[in-house]
Amino acid sequence: MTPVITAFESSPDRGRGLARDMQVRWAFEEVGQPYDVRLLSFKAMKEAAHIGMHPFGQIPTYEEDGLVLFESGAIIFHIAERHPGLLPTDANARARAISWMFAALNTVEPPITAREAAILMERDQPWHEARLPLVEDRIRKRLGELSARLGDSEWLDGDFSAGDILMISALRRLGRSSLLAENDNLASYVARGEARPAFQRAFAAQLKVFKAAAKA
Amino acid sequence: MTPVITAFESSPDRGRGLARDMQVRWAFEEVGQPYDVRLLSFKAMKEAAHIGMHPFGQIPTYEEDGLVLFESGAIIFHIAERHPGLLPTDANARARAISWMFAALNTVEPPITAREAAILMERDQPWHEARLPLVEDRIRKRLGELSARLGDSEWLDGDFSAGDILMISALRRLGRSSLLAENDNLASYVARGEARPAFQRAFAAQLKVFKAAAKA
Repeated sequence: MTPVITAFESSPDRGRGLARDMQVRWAFEEVGQPYDVRLLSFKAMKEAAHIGMHPFGQIPTYEEDGLVLFESGAIIFHIAERHPGLLPTDANARARAISWMFAALNTVEPPITAREAAILMERDQPWHEARLPLVEDRIRKRLGELSARLGDSEWLDGDFSAGDILMISALRRLGRSSLLAENDNLASYVARGEARPAFQRAFAAQLKVFKAAAKA
Repeated sequence: MTPVITAFESSPDRGRGLARDMQVRWAFEEVGQPYDVRLLSFKAMKEAAHIGMHPFGQIPTYEEDGLVLFESGAIIFHIAERHPGLLPTDANARARAISWMFAALNTVEPPITAREAAILMERDQPWHEARLPLVEDRIRKRLGELSARLGDSEWLDGDFSAGDILMISALRRLGRSSLLAENDNLASYVARGEARPAFQRAFAAQLKVFKAAAKA
């Protein structure tokens, strides 16, 4: 059975590939696994049928042969366990790549999503302008540490891995802000990820969904 | 070789078991794996020797036979892969338990750590009092969804798993706030976790470290 993931019928990111189906599509494309997509309206995401699959009413979910998973990190790990190409075969290198998956999601991404929350949900608050630089300094700290570790390496630890998918996806959430550009090697790292044919196919697929919804 | 983890020489949580070595100790205790602890001062955590092991200068790290890991989620996963008791053997149940690990760290914990950041770093800002309720409402939303899914179950999905260790550890970060008590079943769920003998042993071990430092 072809795995089925869920995605936004009309993504709030307007096709910039920041919704979390993007990194799952990217993982599928890296390993050459075809997949189907079931699109959900915002309304459907909050209905019992979807909450039964995803307790937090988000996308993506993953369905295959009676298995239902949620959380993009877990779905990517599941894909990486079942197909060669996203985790090293050497046990120690594999464990280190998994460290980077968790680092992307639990150390680097949270300050970045905190900035998104400030911009999306506190833009009209009287404190927004004064507070945003504090939020951005917390991101800057993590980016500096990541930049120091990455150095001139192509990827985080040896070959490209699921850790790179999640880290690059977290960094891409900085969008057009200048924060990423403050570390040349991180900007190049993200650009290297975006240049991968698998990324390009995944990006085109999600953009097609957004454009179809925009026309409808 | 006995694995070695790092922990705070003097934890800023004053022995409340909220530093991230706690959940790793808990996992070790659940599977009956002895471990050693190397204590670090705040100064040592920012030195090159430690940054070489942990790019973000945090604790815990994990060392065993030349393998160095960081990120508590990744370390717990590593322990769970090597010892029975923290992940189901059935492949689908295992994948679901891993979904809960990621959900704890990437969906439930970030709004909770955002509240910690507000209290620790923005307490003296003029907006703090007006903003905190917004931050707490974001936590409330996630707790409500988690509570609805947990219902009357003992653990998140069947038997106790690494997902429960990470979820209970995230919820414990709410500390003495009333947020947890707003959902009876979540408060009971955390209490069930804390009542486990393995949790108690881990908690006592980290408290002993804090008390020794306080005396010194």
